[in-house]
Amino acid sequence: MRRLGIHSFVWTGGQTQDGLEMALRKSAEHGYRTIEFAYLRPEKFDLGRLAKLAQSLDVEIGVTMGLPLDRDVSSEDPGVVAAGKTMLADAVRAVRDIGGNKLGGILYSAHTKYNRQPTKRGWDNSAAAIAETAELAKSCGVDLVLEVVNRFETNLLNTTAQGLKFIGDTGSDHVRLHLDTFHMNIEEANPAAAIRLAGDKLGYFHIGESNRGFLGDGVINFDLIFDALLDIDYKRDVVFESFSTTVVDEGLSLACAIWRDTWTDNDPLAAHARKFIELKMDEAKRRRATSARP
Amino acid sequence: MRRLGIHSFVWTGGQTQDGLEMALRKSAEHGYRTIEFAYLRPEKFDLGRLAKLAQSLDVEIGVTMGLPLDRDVSSEDPGVVAAGKTMLADAVRAVRDIGGNKLGGILYSAHTKYNRQPTKRGWDNSAAAIAETAELAKSCGVDLVLEVVNRFETNLLNTTAQGLKFIGDTGSDHVRLHLDTFHMNIEEANPAAAIRLAGDKLGYFHIGESNRGFLGDGVINFDLIFDALLDIDYKRDVVFESFSTTVVDEGLSLACAIWRDTWTDNDPLAAHARKFIELKMDEAKRRRATSARP
Amino acid sequence: MRRLGIHSFVWTGGQTQDGLEMALRKSAEHGYRTIEFAYLRPEKFDLGRLAKLAQSLDVEIGVTMGLPLDRDVSSEDPGVVAAGKTMLADAVRAVRDIGGNKLGGILYSAHTKYNRQPTKRGWDNSAAAIAETAELAKSCGVDLVLEVVNRFETNLLNTTAQGLKFIGDTGSDHVRLHLDTFHMNIEEANPAAAIRLAGDKLGYFHIGESNRGFLGDGVINFDLIFDALLDIDYKRDVVFESFSTTVVDEGLSLACAIWRDTWTDNDPLAAHARKFIELKMDEAKRRRATSARP
Amino acid sequence: MRRLGIHSFVWTGGQTQDGLEMALRKSAEHGYRTIEFAYLRPEKFDLGRLAKLAQSLDVEIGVTMGLPLDRDVSSEDPGVVAAGKTMLADAVRAVRDIGGNKLGGILYSAHTKYNRQPTKRGWDNSAAAIAETAELAKSCGVDLVLEVVNRFETNLLNTTAQGLKFIGDTGSDHVRLHLDTFHMNIEEANPAAAIRLAGDKLGYFHIGESNRGFLGDGVINFDLIFDALLDIDYKRDVVFESFSTTVVDEGLSLACAIWRDTWTDNDPLAAHARKFIELKMDEAKRRRATSARP
Repeated sequence: MRRLGIHSFVWTGGQTQDGLEMALRKSAEHGYRTIEFAYLRPEKFDLGRLAKLAQSLDVEIGVTMGLPLDRDVSSEDPGVVAAGKTMLADAVRAVRDIGGNKLGGILYSAHTKYNRQPTKRGWDNSAAAIAETAELAKSCGVDLVLEVVNRFETNLLNTTAQGLKFIGDTGSDHVRLHLDTFHMNIEEANPAAAIRLAGDKLGYFHIGESNRGFLGDGVINFDLIFDALLDIDYKRDVVFESFSTTVVDEGLSLACAIWRDTWTDNDPLAAHARKFIELKMDEAKRRRATSARP
Repeated sequence: MRRLGIHSFVWTGGQTQDGLEMALRKSAEHGYRTIEFAYLRPEKFDLGRLAKLAQSLDVEIGVTMGLPLDRDVSSEDPGVVAAGKTMLADAVRAVRDIGGNKLGGILYSAHTKYNRQPTKRGWDNSAAAIAETAELAKSCGVDLVLEVVNRFETNLLNTTAQGLKFIGDTGSDHVRLHLDTFHMNIEEANPAAAIRLAGDKLGYFHIGESNRGFLGDGVINFDLIFDALLDIDYKRDVVFESFSTTVVDEGLSLACAIWRDTWTDNDPLAAHARKFIELKMDEAKRRRATSARP
Repeated sequence: MRRLGIHSFVWTGGQTQDGLEMALRKSAEHGYRTIEFAYLRPEKFDLGRLAKLAQSLDVEIGVTMGLPLDRDVSSEDPGVVAAGKTMLADAVRAVRDIGGNKLGGILYSAHTKYNRQPTKRGWDNSAAAIAETAELAKSCGVDLVLEVVNRFETNLLNTTAQGLKFIGDTGSDHVRLHLDTFHMNIEEANPAAAIRLAGDKLGYFHIGESNRGFLGDGVINFDLIFDALLDIDYKRDVVFESFSTTVVDEGLSLACAIWRDTWTDNDPLAAHARKFIELKMDEAKRRRATSARP
Repeated sequence: MRRLGIHSFVWTGGQTQDGLEMALRKSAEHGYRTIEFAYLRPEKFDLGRLAKLAQSLDVEIGVTMGLPLDRDVSSEDPGVVAAGKTMLADAVRAVRDIGGNKLGGILYSAHTKYNRQPTKRGWDNSAAAIAETAELAKSCGVDLVLEVVNRFETNLLNTTAQGLKFIGDTGSDHVRLHLDTFHMNIEEANPAAAIRLAGDKLGYFHIGESNRGFLGDGVINFDLIFDALLDIDYKRDVVFESFSTTVVDEGLSLACAIWRDTWTDNDPLAAHARKFIELKMDEAKRRRATSARP
């Protein structure tokens, strides 16, 4: 992996400039070297100041988001799709302005529990919108990564295989996948095989436990995950994500159905996650070397 | 386990009398000895005829359901709660009339992706409603089992520990838990420990894979599950559940976010599930005996 | 896999012609299509009759063995090595004469708990002896496969990586590896990775549980094993192996340290193993297809 | 757990006073608070000096050993059994003299790859010898713990169930079991169930990987192990054990069949093991708490 990062939602609901600055400082203190901001709204924050602070801390910034239903690029309504494309373009520019290096998340549909089946026309609308957004992202020096999420958070891309087909349909070489162990635990028949299937199309990786709490408080076999990341020689960022009712972002908490305090103190959570990920990654490297050594 | 069963949704969307009768016959053919009907609507079906067919096939009937938001007994609105209680009472009577032996599912709240946090008052309203329903169920000879489901299908009972506290709050000895491996895979820090925690309060058990498709097409460690069921000497029914877009029930498909055809042919699915469950259960029994034998 | 087989030691200690014939018949009855004979001694048996019976039952024969210390080709003593080579040559010819298709096992050293470290000179002696044996085997139409076993049964080849290096040192393209889940469970840092490392050098595969008893009575994660066999598109034989004090072969029982009756009745053992392996293999194929299907 | 310890064989072959003193210091430096000496020979070492150094470092001492064949208390030869009892009594006194708190290992038989089946008379001889040794140990304030090991290192006690039966046959309340994850990985149908079966008869616990190298370089599911230790509220010592050809003790290296350098530098090994065990234990505690919290 390139840099180990943390989702800002571990620290703050993300509604204030102060909150985001605190999150940057906390992440750096804990030794994380990239941070993920969700639903960054340029009109609410002083992006230049966040960029400067991040740079001074040597913490890189990635941004993720999901579309609202009225700007859903997988809609069949041209007006809604157009509004979605504008939103995506604005987001790309905000990432550029904050000095960020990637835009990820559920960019290809609404971030919602859908109440309808996906359609072929919606898929095509979405692929076209993402292709167009990718052009802009490329010119802005921003990576575009699509998060494959569970069935309750989108109806379009629930598996890696779907994600790869979608990327093929965009025709763009600038779009990659953003995989997440929490979502893979629900959707993939074989999460490690999914990582190997993604191969060099994997552009961003989330480490999260099956209940979105502390790593270890769940069922995910992380050894298999880290083995697979080494199998594909994954060299991009790995970001830890965990949600609890202890930190509330009205929109994200509801979209992600966070009803429990899986933790109440984020400092030990962040400290443990870094130790866990680094230990597991080292073990996977050693296991790989031991396996191959006669 | 007592009887091995199958969810009718493997066979039919459940909208017609013919569909339910076919489901009963198919289940019996495949050697299942109990069936689960979802959202049984007495006004739509000839319950007596279903009861008679079931009896002739030696297939028992269980019924599950979830409440709609306008009859949500975990609401803070007394009118909504009252409507919910009526719906539950009607369901108990329908189970009795069809000769069924249990009512389960999300009886304590709506079956929906909530857009609000649960409240203490809603919890209390729900516990009171379930207590009242339990009285009726007891008098009707119907078991009452509450399904603990993932965060996207209720905001009230996502874990076994919550379920046990809830049962305690009802004050009833007639309420038990209905656990499901698919949901536990998302919510429980340790599914086997959850089963052992439930102990004799476990009243019904669903076997489903992590992606709700074929058993084996996912990440669940079923050996641990069967070991735990033996640890608590579980003696009630075990029912296989799997959903695919191949069989559609408009309401249930959307509530459960079924967007993929994880299978297209239900006969091999049902045949494999029975073989799988029986093999695993036998292995767990043998493993248990081997472990204890000097 | 090509053919599913069973080790004759499930049926008989292998000391009599009658025992081996019974083993052939039992294997066929249970649907196995290849059998493994251990330590076949041409002077004791009517090989032609065994060959004919096997053919009539459509059961193929493979033979495995380990060397005794006084014929150990990994010895530093030239006389011992020469005696070992003669024994290997005799074995190759016996396999040919019985109409068998492979010679496997611990051909490269003694089958014993060593009381000394391996040496470079012993390794080289062994590689030369195996190279010579491979020439003969090739001309006899007999596959030569080297079983990688745990530290207590040889001191030379305990891991796949060692086995591959050894094959390289023989310079022969007719030598392949014989891997076994029981041994891998002790020695390999990552059994699935070991299978993928072996790739097309894998020539024969043993399925055995961690305690050598019933499949399921142990700790081996067979899903990972079958996934890996599909990853390398393994197309050769898979053979079930299990040992118990119920069936005794004086030499093999002691060499393998069989002190317990992990089972007492071999019919259910063999029936279960076939069901288990076929079910798991089917699940692995389905899991692979599901993972890749958009 | 009470104290986390380390086997001295990580540091030294144990042939010299200097080696054992270095091992004590290294263990303390790495934060281990108990050490295990193997095959302590009172005639070779200044026990008083070791005791004093250990005390000054706040490192407790445990001693383990296995019997040689000519002093095997599971022999049928009364002379051999008598010699074994003398050896055990000497060992108990040496543990007392070094200020140690426990004597463990393969006290009930030879530490060897047997070439014969165990016998009822040998079992009885052994149980009587251990009962007698336990009397002495009790009076010396030394715990007596019997290590259940794999089939290649004894033919008598390979499983927890056998160990418990054996303890029962001694009639002593001063004998407990010494379990080890490396051995359990080979012999137990269900290692976690074995730990729960042992319950308060578990007196000592070894953490070792399946290939006896680095933790993580193998197949053992340590989450299940730590969960089980919490299930029985295990409150005694946990000791890390790892062997490599890098450190050689002529006797122990051969008895344990150590032919590979699974590591070459013991400092990172010891540092990693402590971090690993403490992290996993913390995770198990948290997982347990999370599971039980409504």
